Amino acid sequence: MIKARVTVTLKNGVLDPQGKAIEHALGGLGFSGVDSVRQGKIFDVVLATSDRKEAEAEIKAMAAKLLANSVIEDFSVEVI
Amino acid sequence: MIKARVTVTLKNGVLDPQGKAIEHALGGLGFSGVDSVRQGKIFDVVLATSDRKEAEAEIKAMAAKLLANSVIEDFSVEVI
Repeated sequence: MIKARVTVTLKNGVLDPQGKAIEHALGGLGFSGVDSVRQGKIFDVVLATSDRKEAEAEIKAMAAKLLANSVIEDFSVEVI
Repeated sequence: MIKARVTVTLKNGVLDPQGKAIEHALGGLGFSGVDSVRQGKIFDVVLATSDRKEAEAEIKAMAAKLLANSVIEDFSVEVI
């Protein structure tokens, strides 16, 4: 079994209204020093294989095909 | 300016229907070796301070108060 974490973040320049909303909510709660907030997603994937290289390649393919939208998002894969 | 990443994941045992849906979608796309998928969130926060200790404490407070739901979620903070 191999565990990996895929981290998906919005590309620079892509608007993030959810992040903006959180930024304002934090201000409203009294956290005054917040400059910016951007939100992203993680996917913890467990694969039934023991070949790390194969697992990494497969998870990158999954991220490119389904987990991330390459038009507006970047992703990184970290095998744990 | 200090950047930090807050990672929010579901606690063990908490059902993750979104993760299950992704798991099935990956199967449907031909990725056969997927054992499980669990989804989480990240928040990239930029603080207008230069004191790392203060920043870390403030971001932990933000996570506990707003970013994570401590009943069903765990969080970790990493100052970059």
